[in-house]
Amino acid sequence: MDIVKVFGTNVKRYRQAMGISQEAFAEKCGLHRTYISAIECFRRSISLENIQRIADALEIDTYKLFMEE
Amino acid sequence: MDIVKVFGTNVKRYRQAMGISQEAFAEKCGLHRTYISAIECFRRSISLENIQRIADALEIDTYKLFMEE
Repeated sequence: MDIVKVFGTNVKRYRQAMGISQEAFAEKCGLHRTYISAIECFRRSISLENIQRIADALEIDTYKLFMEE
Repeated sequence: MDIVKVFGTNVKRYRQAMGISQEAFAEKCGLHRTYISAIECFRRSISLENIQRIADALEIDTYKLFMEE
């Protein structure tokens, strides 16, 4: 399991299921659009605090972002 | 949910279930004992890469570290 890939893939999948753009989602998280883009493209790691912001913005339990489909 | 508390609590619980000390566990993770101690005491955040190291050392699926008991 590559946690960066699993996490980025899940963020993208849940975001798209909400039907919102990276930009709108970034605003909902209080993060920058390029930060969301980098996560979804597996180009960066992320801290626990920002993991929580993202899960809150997606309105899902955090652990779901770490489950492989 | 406070992700730092949930994560730290779970690391400690799974480590104790393995019956090993912070020091032995830190060595298994390739991390420093003070780093493990700080996580278990909710005193620091942690990157995705180190989350994976810890889950691997605990021999559990990563998402379990984010589930509230």
